[in-house]
Amino acid sequence: MIHFSPSLTRLVGELKKLPGIGERTALRLAFHILRSPRMGRDLADSLRDVSERVGFCSLCFGITEDDPCCICSSERDGDVICVVEEPQDLLAIERSGAFRGRYHVLHGALSPLNGIMPSDLKIAELVRRLQGSPVREIVLATNFTVEGEATALYLSGLIKPLGIKVTRLAHGMPIGGDLEYVDVATVQRALEGRNEL
Amino acid sequence: MIHFSPSLTRLVGELKKLPGIGERTALRLAFHILRSPRMGRDLADSLRDVSERVGFCSLCFGITEDDPCCICSSERDGDVICVVEEPQDLLAIERSGAFRGRYHVLHGALSPLNGIMPSDLKIAELVRRLQGSPVREIVLATNFTVEGEATALYLSGLIKPLGIKVTRLAHGMPIGGDLEYVDVATVQRALEGRNEL
Repeated sequence: MIHFSPSLTRLVGELKKLPGIGERTALRLAFHILRSPRMGRDLADSLRDVSERVGFCSLCFGITEDDPCCICSSERDGDVICVVEEPQDLLAIERSGAFRGRYHVLHGALSPLNGIMPSDLKIAELVRRLQGSPVREIVLATNFTVEGEATALYLSGLIKPLGIKVTRLAHGMPIGGDLEYVDVATVQRALEGRNEL
Repeated sequence: MIHFSPSLTRLVGELKKLPGIGERTALRLAFHILRSPRMGRDLADSLRDVSERVGFCSLCFGITEDDPCCICSSERDGDVICVVEEPQDLLAIERSGAFRGRYHVLHGALSPLNGIMPSDLKIAELVRRLQGSPVREIVLATNFTVEGEATALYLSGLIKPLGIKVTRLAHGMPIGGDLEYVDVATVQRALEGRNEL
């Protein structure tokens, strides 16, 4: 469309691949970037930085630049592991300040209709972590969606036989809600009121 | 906030500088990019490309990778120049297909309250272009906002004494509207019904 500049057309195309960014917004962002070349360079640098430096912890699969991550290599309580769907959910729990244990990030939730099966998630890795470990409680903090609940149920069936207590965040969470977007106080109440499954 | 990764924190900071992108959206975009490193690299490449290759035409100040731009170096009608505020406005006129002349991009509109004076726009460059040129009509296509109207009036007073016909896009445009967002048919009607000032 912008036949005046193939580079700009390409940038608009790349921006449009981002979630929630359509043609109009992409064009507006591209022109904004064009107007301040320094912003474009800074953004390019930090994108490159992220793709080179940021990875996932080989233990908990949370986001980290060092492996293992700062939580896994910390002195934090190794008795309790909180299982979440996505790295941003881990951040939501951390923000609440109500949890001092460790984490395990599944990188998704079970969704057979969309072809997401247990082998697509970091479930085998979780079970391996539990074997011969001193873990005495797993807090299932998957989202309160159909997929999140199914994943919690599946994990509960897998982990309970190992003799480990399995709890779920209390229903302070709104039904159908997404952990990432819930306010801190609700996350705190949900953690405090967690129930054994 | 994401003390797990300074790079990611920096990326969120850079994304937040874009118009209409807040903390939440920036975080969501950053996590999306993290999930597909190729997208991050492609976006970084095209940002770099744009900042290196794309500039403004030294004649019309539209966007271009070559100087002069493809319109200024084309065989198009040199008798009529359409004056617009922003490069994206030039695109809006081009999209309508109703104009076959040349352009001049002001890079803004007069706004004394915001400290934007004639010397901040490409007005001197426009007047220079007109001196000793065969231009017989200037179509003022600044936006129909207070600033755009003021700019049109100012330019009209500047150009008419040069013996050049000055026209304004017809009021097919919605009052208070922004050229960039108007539908093609309206832009066409506005061009067809342009009036002498």
